[in-house]
Amino acid sequence: MTEPALLIIDVQKGLDDPKLGKRNNPQAEANMARLLSDWRENKRPIIHIKHNSVEPQSPLRPDLPGNEIKDEVKPLADEPLFSKTVNSAFIGTNLESYLHEQKIESLVIVGLTTAHCVSTSTRMAANLGFNVTLVSDATATHERVGVNGRSYSAEELHEMELAMLNEEFCAVHTTDELLQQ
Amino acid sequence: MTEPALLIIDVQKGLDDPKLGKRNNPQAEANMARLLSDWRENKRPIIHIKHNSVEPQSPLRPDLPGNEIKDEVKPLADEPLFSKTVNSAFIGTNLESYLHEQKIESLVIVGLTTAHCVSTSTRMAANLGFNVTLVSDATATHERVGVNGRSYSAEELHEMELAMLNEEFCAVHTTDELLQQ
Repeated sequence: MTEPALLIIDVQKGLDDPKLGKRNNPQAEANMARLLSDWRENKRPIIHIKHNSVEPQSPLRPDLPGNEIKDEVKPLADEPLFSKTVNSAFIGTNLESYLHEQKIESLVIVGLTTAHCVSTSTRMAANLGFNVTLVSDATATHERVGVNGRSYSAEELHEMELAMLNEEFCAVHTTDELLQQ
Repeated sequence: MTEPALLIIDVQKGLDDPKLGKRNNPQAEANMARLLSDWRENKRPIIHIKHNSVEPQSPLRPDLPGNEIKDEVKPLADEPLFSKTVNSAFIGTNLESYLHEQKIESLVIVGLTTAHCVSTSTRMAANLGFNVTLVSDATATHERVGVNGRSYSAEELHEMELAMLNEEFCAVHTTDELLQQ
């Protein structure tokens, strides 16, 4: 059995656009970088996911500077990168068949954002039969207004989404817990 | 173009098991029944989804009485029913190809639970290209403890999940709004 792959989702400059609102976990990128170093040192599999938005107003459109992956987790030339146009890293990509070819059964998921692409990819990875670990302090999300008109902070949304995902789709751990294993 | 299909997810007796904790929206089943009557009267497409759990401890195992669909939304013999073993109604079923065959492009989603099968199916339906309406008062969820040890009420989790889904994956509406359209 192959070692767990580190799946790094949508860590792109455009997600710092102020119009997306306040974000939690400012240290998330530093934690992703610590995990990425560890995975590289131990020659475990690493997979990068990038969002090429087809929405007219999105800062993640491929023709905009916001599409670029942040320096902290910039892929090396020999690390696989899958581009997607929707939230799930498994829809419209060959990620599922790639994981099966590589005999990868476990994923450690980090990236942006907890509410959208990270949650959707975590849910689908689990439902496709992969064993998923989600790293609570190497993911983050933005504040949002509810359908009831209430404003929810990024931290509230992040914690509640982790509560909904944990034990149903994944095991939630911190960066330190993973690096100490 | 075919009219929107009503997709009724996992409205099964076992989800009333007290070990799942307190639930919000006690009127959700009555609202589902109102929508189902309306869909039947107007001869719009109706699709039932049932969870056949493979988890040893689940009240939704096919050999248990909790697997049974509740009386309020019991399928008629000529209404299609897809059985699944994971959260997403699209994984391990022919639902996607059925919708394409029937030229159904829009879904109105109701059922249980907001946090798990409803959210996962909504996210995946949207990412597969379907136009999704989620009915806020014809879905419901259970209370849950976060990875931070905090207890979250069913209503908080429900409202936050709707906030995360709305406008990104679906349009959230009430039963009354849909019936008045």
